[in-house]
Amino acid sequence: MSVSLGRFVIGQDQPFRLIAGPCQIESRDHAFFMAEALHDLCQELDIGLIYKSSFDKANRSSVNAARGVGMTEGLKILSDIRSRFDIPVLTDVHAPEQCAPAAEAVDVLQIPAFLCRQTDLLLAAGKTGRAINVKKGQFLAPQDMQNVVDKLKSTGNDRILLCERGTCFGYNTLINDMRGLPIMARTGFPVVFDATHSVQQPGGLGTATGGQREFVAPLARAAIATGVSALFIETHQEPDTAPSDGPTMIPLAGMRDLLVSLKKLDQLVKAEIL
Amino acid sequence: MSVSLGRFVIGQDQPFRLIAGPCQIESRDHAFFMAEALHDLCQELDIGLIYKSSFDKANRSSVNAARGVGMTEGLKILSDIRSRFDIPVLTDVHAPEQCAPAAEAVDVLQIPAFLCRQTDLLLAAGKTGRAINVKKGQFLAPQDMQNVVDKLKSTGNDRILLCERGTCFGYNTLINDMRGLPIMARTGFPVVFDATHSVQQPGGLGTATGGQREFVAPLARAAIATGVSALFIETHQEPDTAPSDGPTMIPLAGMRDLLVSLKKLDQLVKAEIL
Amino acid sequence: MSVSLGRFVIGQDQPFRLIAGPCQIESRDHAFFMAEALHDLCQELDIGLIYKSSFDKANRSSVNAARGVGMTEGLKILSDIRSRFDIPVLTDVHAPEQCAPAAEAVDVLQIPAFLCRQTDLLLAAGKTGRAINVKKGQFLAPQDMQNVVDKLKSTGNDRILLCERGTCFGYNTLINDMRGLPIMARTGFPVVFDATHSVQQPGGLGTATGGQREFVAPLARAAIATGVSALFIETHQEPDTAPSDGPTMIPLAGMRDLLVSLKKLDQLVKAEIL
Amino acid sequence: MSVSLGRFVIGQDQPFRLIAGPCQIESRDHAFFMAEALHDLCQELDIGLIYKSSFDKANRSSVNAARGVGMTEGLKILSDIRSRFDIPVLTDVHAPEQCAPAAEAVDVLQIPAFLCRQTDLLLAAGKTGRAINVKKGQFLAPQDMQNVVDKLKSTGNDRILLCERGTCFGYNTLINDMRGLPIMARTGFPVVFDATHSVQQPGGLGTATGGQREFVAPLARAAIATGVSALFIETHQEPDTAPSDGPTMIPLAGMRDLLVSLKKLDQLVKAEIL
Repeated sequence: MSVSLGRFVIGQDQPFRLIAGPCQIESRDHAFFMAEALHDLCQELDIGLIYKSSFDKANRSSVNAARGVGMTEGLKILSDIRSRFDIPVLTDVHAPEQCAPAAEAVDVLQIPAFLCRQTDLLLAAGKTGRAINVKKGQFLAPQDMQNVVDKLKSTGNDRILLCERGTCFGYNTLINDMRGLPIMARTGFPVVFDATHSVQQPGGLGTATGGQREFVAPLARAAIATGVSALFIETHQEPDTAPSDGPTMIPLAGMRDLLVSLKKLDQLVKAEIL
Repeated sequence: MSVSLGRFVIGQDQPFRLIAGPCQIESRDHAFFMAEALHDLCQELDIGLIYKSSFDKANRSSVNAARGVGMTEGLKILSDIRSRFDIPVLTDVHAPEQCAPAAEAVDVLQIPAFLCRQTDLLLAAGKTGRAINVKKGQFLAPQDMQNVVDKLKSTGNDRILLCERGTCFGYNTLINDMRGLPIMARTGFPVVFDATHSVQQPGGLGTATGGQREFVAPLARAAIATGVSALFIETHQEPDTAPSDGPTMIPLAGMRDLLVSLKKLDQLVKAEIL
Repeated sequence: MSVSLGRFVIGQDQPFRLIAGPCQIESRDHAFFMAEALHDLCQELDIGLIYKSSFDKANRSSVNAARGVGMTEGLKILSDIRSRFDIPVLTDVHAPEQCAPAAEAVDVLQIPAFLCRQTDLLLAAGKTGRAINVKKGQFLAPQDMQNVVDKLKSTGNDRILLCERGTCFGYNTLINDMRGLPIMARTGFPVVFDATHSVQQPGGLGTATGGQREFVAPLARAAIATGVSALFIETHQEPDTAPSDGPTMIPLAGMRDLLVSLKKLDQLVKAEIL
Repeated sequence: MSVSLGRFVIGQDQPFRLIAGPCQIESRDHAFFMAEALHDLCQELDIGLIYKSSFDKANRSSVNAARGVGMTEGLKILSDIRSRFDIPVLTDVHAPEQCAPAAEAVDVLQIPAFLCRQTDLLLAAGKTGRAINVKKGQFLAPQDMQNVVDKLKSTGNDRILLCERGTCFGYNTLINDMRGLPIMARTGFPVVFDATHSVQQPGGLGTATGGQREFVAPLARAAIATGVSALFIETHQEPDTAPSDGPTMIPLAGMRDLLVSLKKLDQLVKAEIL
């Protein structure tokens, strides 16, 4: 089942779409700066872009970590980006009551991995009719995403994306089971690979999450070769000074080369292999 | 740091306290039946009891699974049990706005494992001043509970309990790292061992969570020998027909023998070993 | 560092080479039948072939499982295949004293995963001067293969291949960490991906190892997209009746399509991406 | 099924026996020094002792690590310790041809964890008629030890001990699944808990294995509370200068207190709980 989103369709037989943006909305100016850069790049490379950014980082490791601009301000910025660049936008929701207002402003509601089994959140998100991108919990087997799908479908919404972002492997480490991609695809819904959160090392820095940015590219290639509908890649013009997820984000300046190679691979895989 | 709760104190140098009850509040009559049975048993065995039950099962595997009596009705029942039997009661909260009303009715607010990093929930719970029992996420290393503690302490609340309930081990399986008990105890707060959720097999039954009830007793003994402040054990007069967590709950009729042996062990460990 | 093997070179910048054959040598006739089929196929597709088969299955789950034709008979068959088809051959060794005779008969000695830390076996294998394919133990981190490399290099032998075949993930399950491929490549030696043993479910059938043949193709694609020097794929004309590893082997009749698609992918990756 | 060993019996209903000694035989003098100290301590505490030491460390992380005094010299020392102190002795074997000579010198042959599926080694060990202590592989589910038992029993030998020493948990970390103890006991054979290897961090020091000595005591208590026939504890008068396993061995000076507390616990558990 494919999911239409403005001028393009997300589906296993479509070119990969890109969900990208900085981890959090740092300011209106920064958000527009990033959106413009990504919009221009994706237009040049002919890659369907969904702009992603969070208005609240609701589960930071430390209570002292930056959480973002807040919902009202954040949704306004995202909505304005949507209008300005005519691109779909995505943000994550953390509570049922955030779903309706977020659905006014964005095209895709994202369910965070830790919350993928919270029934009320799934139902509230589903009821908006917006496309839903659910991250597979780090604690969940890929086949168990069928139960998540069933919760969403019970609302009459079948605009569902299932996203791999790593599975617990010992302490402070995630691993990607590439078998999980075809397993989740058995639900019939498009599968997304989150290449930047997959290289997180949760708690690896004590009061913050570490990461292994150098593995984003090979893991993204592996996922594309397995077959996915979309890639999720967080990016920042200066990741090492970003307020969150710096160790995993891809420098904006490196996005072009990465995307060019991923597009070649995806084209071959979908044209001649799958 | 010990946590006072009515007539007893929960602490690493105190006899183990028992957090027990059926997984969910099935009805007023059933809740009173269970509370009376546990109250009488614990009075006879001289074990400090905290009665536990959920008013809402907010993260069931399947959307069709029974969720409980709801918050208003559930909190009333728990509050009445507290008055009737003069025992502390505990329930779990899933959203920040549930914390204040729940704190009116119960003595201990419990943070579910999947939600142990949700900052707003922790802060709202902490602000009530009630004792907080936080389940360690299945995705979290025991040392990373320090960050959870710091979030709670930032509210001025230091009535904190840290609870082990299993860690992800491959798919559909949890494992208890007994090293996690002394590691969590380094925070200075009492450590609880949840013996029944530890034997869950999440998703093991397709649309429901399976379990290995036969390992509750040996794991509880292992935890006590390591050294804990409290045990968490769900129980039911007829687990196999319970609306949730049947495969892991201990039959009520088996609680006496289990508690008698655990008490002997705990007494020896705290008197002569630790 | 590349490894020369007859008419071709195994290296990260070379087209992928194929290590293939039935799990065990069932008989002279069967071995020749399989070798001829693979030789013809690889010649047609222009893929460098190393024929693989075991003379002894030394660590079967059950004592009653078929172990093979024995070393003397087995090495004679492999040596004759090498002469008859003019292709390099590979077999696994399980004890230091097998290394010298095996080195007379074959071009590559393979160290089984369970034995990858047995110093005497590594040293005896290294001393033969033959190329060595070491399977990474299911219990070993990829970065710890450096220690294995150092043991082999201490014999003056630097014709080393490092092979990923899955890592323990809970019980009875293996997982491939695709990050392990570039991590092992940091040693400077060619990296092999074993696509059929990676989908084993050890002990999954009680007295035998199960498997998930349907994931061989996507995992092989993922590995190639990450970048490898060789693929290891066991195959059989009728896997379900094979004396060992039936649940994981690829039907001989399916090899052509699989190899054609893997070759296209490998060509693109090495020409335009890596 | 219990296993007789000289003047005592190893069994699930017997007081725990102690397998102890330094990791490797460093010299005749050192071995006698350690054996005398352990013999005297165990006699005083009335604990059945099996003296353990290795003549060869066959799977060290690094090729440069000390391997021991060799088989001939090592077996002579162990045999002399057996005579001198009239205690059973145990050593590990790594190749089938070591089994017969080792069986001349020692009472228990131990199969290393990495080698627990090597059929020839198990059969050769079994055929000696000596008691066999098999370490469960770090890669093996506890229920799969039944296959190992069946291999040994096929030789007519039923003097079998099954030993837990940790299971793979992510990279460079082991975890003890305490459920594994009763699961292995279902085979009918005595279960041993190896408290010092269980706290290894394989590869944790780069070219050597690290460890967490501080968890030996709590894990040993947890195992005893679960119910075991024997404990395996490596010890050294000065662990930090030992040629192997220093980070995990217990200082000899700390053994008395540890054993006293473990004995109290074991007595209670076996008298009143199991």
